[in-house]
Amino acid sequence: MSSSDIFIGEIIGTAVLILLGGGVVAAVVLKRSKAQNAGWLAITFGWGFAVMTAVYMTGSLSGAHLNPAVTVGIAIKDGDWSNAPVYFAGQILGAMIGAALVWIAYYGQFQAHLTDPEILAEQPAEEGMVDQKAAPKAGPVLGVFSTGPEVRNVWQNLATEIIGTVVLVLAVLTQGLNDSGKGLGVLGALITAFVVVGIGLSLGGPTGYAINPARDLGPRIVHALLPLPNKGGSDWSYAWIPVVGPLIGGALAAGIYNIAFA
Amino acid sequence: MSSSDIFIGEIIGTAVLILLGGGVVAAVVLKRSKAQNAGWLAITFGWGFAVMTAVYMTGSLSGAHLNPAVTVGIAIKDGDWSNAPVYFAGQILGAMIGAALVWIAYYGQFQAHLTDPEILAEQPAEEGMVDQKAAPKAGPVLGVFSTGPEVRNVWQNLATEIIGTVVLVLAVLTQGLNDSGKGLGVLGALITAFVVVGIGLSLGGPTGYAINPARDLGPRIVHALLPLPNKGGSDWSYAWIPVVGPLIGGALAAGIYNIAFA
Amino acid sequence: MSSSDIFIGEIIGTAVLILLGGGVVAAVVLKRSKAQNAGWLAITFGWGFAVMTAVYMTGSLSGAHLNPAVTVGIAIKDGDWSNAPVYFAGQILGAMIGAALVWIAYYGQFQAHLTDPEILAEQPAEEGMVDQKAAPKAGPVLGVFSTGPEVRNVWQNLATEIIGTVVLVLAVLTQGLNDSGKGLGVLGALITAFVVVGIGLSLGGPTGYAINPARDLGPRIVHALLPLPNKGGSDWSYAWIPVVGPLIGGALAAGIYNIAFA
Amino acid sequence: MSSSDIFIGEIIGTAVLILLGGGVVAAVVLKRSKAQNAGWLAITFGWGFAVMTAVYMTGSLSGAHLNPAVTVGIAIKDGDWSNAPVYFAGQILGAMIGAALVWIAYYGQFQAHLTDPEILAEQPAEEGMVDQKAAPKAGPVLGVFSTGPEVRNVWQNLATEIIGTVVLVLAVLTQGLNDSGKGLGVLGALITAFVVVGIGLSLGGPTGYAINPARDLGPRIVHALLPLPNKGGSDWSYAWIPVVGPLIGGALAAGIYNIAFA
Repeated sequence: MSSSDIFIGEIIGTAVLILLGGGVVAAVVLKRSKAQNAGWLAITFGWGFAVMTAVYMTGSLSGAHLNPAVTVGIAIKDGDWSNAPVYFAGQILGAMIGAALVWIAYYGQFQAHLTDPEILAEQPAEEGMVDQKAAPKAGPVLGVFSTGPEVRNVWQNLATEIIGTVVLVLAVLTQGLNDSGKGLGVLGALITAFVVVGIGLSLGGPTGYAINPARDLGPRIVHALLPLPNKGGSDWSYAWIPVVGPLIGGALAAGIYNIAFA
Repeated sequence: MSSSDIFIGEIIGTAVLILLGGGVVAAVVLKRSKAQNAGWLAITFGWGFAVMTAVYMTGSLSGAHLNPAVTVGIAIKDGDWSNAPVYFAGQILGAMIGAALVWIAYYGQFQAHLTDPEILAEQPAEEGMVDQKAAPKAGPVLGVFSTGPEVRNVWQNLATEIIGTVVLVLAVLTQGLNDSGKGLGVLGALITAFVVVGIGLSLGGPTGYAINPARDLGPRIVHALLPLPNKGGSDWSYAWIPVVGPLIGGALAAGIYNIAFA
Repeated sequence: MSSSDIFIGEIIGTAVLILLGGGVVAAVVLKRSKAQNAGWLAITFGWGFAVMTAVYMTGSLSGAHLNPAVTVGIAIKDGDWSNAPVYFAGQILGAMIGAALVWIAYYGQFQAHLTDPEILAEQPAEEGMVDQKAAPKAGPVLGVFSTGPEVRNVWQNLATEIIGTVVLVLAVLTQGLNDSGKGLGVLGALITAFVVVGIGLSLGGPTGYAINPARDLGPRIVHALLPLPNKGGSDWSYAWIPVVGPLIGGALAAGIYNIAFA
Repeated sequence: MSSSDIFIGEIIGTAVLILLGGGVVAAVVLKRSKAQNAGWLAITFGWGFAVMTAVYMTGSLSGAHLNPAVTVGIAIKDGDWSNAPVYFAGQILGAMIGAALVWIAYYGQFQAHLTDPEILAEQPAEEGMVDQKAAPKAGPVLGVFSTGPEVRNVWQNLATEIIGTVVLVLAVLTQGLNDSGKGLGVLGALITAFVVVGIGLSLGGPTGYAINPARDLGPRIVHALLPLPNKGGSDWSYAWIPVVGPLIGGALAAGIYNIAFA
């Protein structure tokens, strides 16, 4: 794979991932959306099919990492970091493009949700709520872009992100053992999608399962930049956890792979 | 593929697509249906399996475009428009047949929903509601046939349909890269189905995701023609958006494909 | 395939189909079940995975028709009725065994639902309700075994069952076009499962989608025979529709196949 | 397969199975989880994708039994018990590790659920409730670890676990007939996942479908050992049923296989 194929593939793939992934959260939490209150199952399947669609589209271009934690895991497994910077750059840029596309696709919903006086009246002032640790809780609008914990506890939040990412990256790394070296294909995309649905259902409860630094950081930057009225803060004090946790998880998965499976 | 195979395949395939796709909306929104209020997840999976069933059945006959936006995307990619008119004709005709079959399968539900005095009494007069832009909102009966926006905003509605269709058609066009040129087969049908579920979950909130001109226009014509009592208007002022948006999206997807993937 | 393999395969397969299919209805409608009120999506996926499991298990023994309408469709397509009686016998016998196994697996739930005074007090007397046509409506306990219409209208009910079965059998018959003659394999089982989920979601609203004479008649006989207290009638006046409708549908699908696909 | 590969594969696989399977129950039942009240469909799909992920990861190492009932079924079918003790040991150990990981991932949720005075005030005292047989009912916290019946009836509970396990193990044993001896691969993992979802939806209502002795016993031991405040009892009087029932079911499935399919 050439560097330009990797760069373009990761941009397109991660943009599609975040467009569909952020999109399903917008669909479920924003007022004036047909999918409002469709529930957690809709969110987890939405993210899963976001992964599937993005991997399916771009697997032949870049191998469809779409996640710095996957890139770290593969780099450690293969002992080859030469392409990692190109992957990282494409992933962050793609995630930012995807988040901006969510804003365009849900423009009227964001406007209604954040500025319609009638809608605001029925909404609890979630951004202003303080939980038992006096830290800001991510409200539904930041939630369209980035993750936030239900119980704010650095060590647990980090542990949950690490555990979820180990499962994801270990599933990606062991894929080659099933696919006889044919790489990410149609079935790989489908299985990976359902692994992500599974992680969401099973390990998403505490932190909203970033399990991908680009998925969380890119859209958080876009949230900070977008001219959304009444959008509240971008919760930068939490932002390092869904970056550091998944990177540790990716490395840990590669370690487990090298010890138990290689 | 012969022209007659294409024509027959697209008629059967698009009829099955709309029978099952319109059917799931009827099942969820009409009174006296066992599936009433089964929710957005049911609607999105219903449309996804509608696509899967139709593609699976007719892939060997016509290639199962079932969507003028897909035909446009493939024609631009291949530089060959010779069969496009046959595809378009079969798609519109099939969509109309499918919508008529939904009416037959749900005949008693339509009757109860639209004429039963007790049921009408508990229903809000949704057809008569005016939203903040004084434009008619598609009620549940038109919604069985065609899409309508939650927030009526031409540029956003068009953008959402374009974005959704780009994702769909790009997934169809890149399929060949995964399938080693074997065309639409069993796995292709399944992946495409889940791509459509994903688009529905993630991008369906604002407009109800037509992402297919035939899917919207054919049933809207049937809605206008059917002798349904108290059916309300067919919202023709909106009808061009789910036709033009997806056609632009299909062309755009082909452009992205030719630049990034070819 | 030998006659004994067909007979045994259809018994096991149809028993598993009804055990899991009737089971999911029991799980969702009976009191004192963990899945109570899990909803229509649970029922449709439950039936779909019932089909998948049964087809997957017995495809190599009998070809896994598991449905007289499928047997009729294949017999017409192939012009060979020699094995049809063995298929039919195995299917009805298997369906009866499956329904009896549902009763065993949910024994305590049936008892509580039908005899616990506290539970009966909170239940509306559904068996005794008469709908607007003065015909008995299938209550939740008969619904674990057999289907019943929401609006009792012979022609619509028949039409809905015919339409649903045409979709099912046409999907089964066209499978060979995708599978290059390899017969019902792993992917065929999965696709067929999702076709059945799709039919349930989209066409199940009016009648509960029997689309299989054995699925409806076998368990209805078991309902009539079982010593369930307060079980109500078996609604024999409706029983011919989910037998005749699917048989017509299967034949019609074979006709469409022979004209359009052969 | 070497004994050490089997041992390590079963530990990793069963740990992932219980991490994701117990995790989805924690996500749905514990307070302060984003997935609270996501419902039965979420739980059954969560367990299904837990199986898929675990089988997919470890199929090449140990064959991914992950369940003593599967090991028993395969041992009877093949007439070879030599590796069974290694499988059993890995499965129990893995299940205990998985349950401990659920506790770490949901640490703050367990704390809030069990000790937060406000949350306790709104909770019914479920552990203290006595059902009609004066036996303790498994509360939501034990339910994260182990199964419990809705109606406490030894013979029915045992029968339900036997029936569910026969379906599971028969599906695993007949897999070889579809896969032409290629063993547990990508599609096998997916089908097995959906078989488990199906069993959960259809047969999970009465007992919560252990269908796996290690899945129930390992986490029950961890529940007894963990320093969870106000955790209630571990319901040891029921603990033998989800061990003995599945073992009988696995043996029965092998018997059916040897008679009908071999």
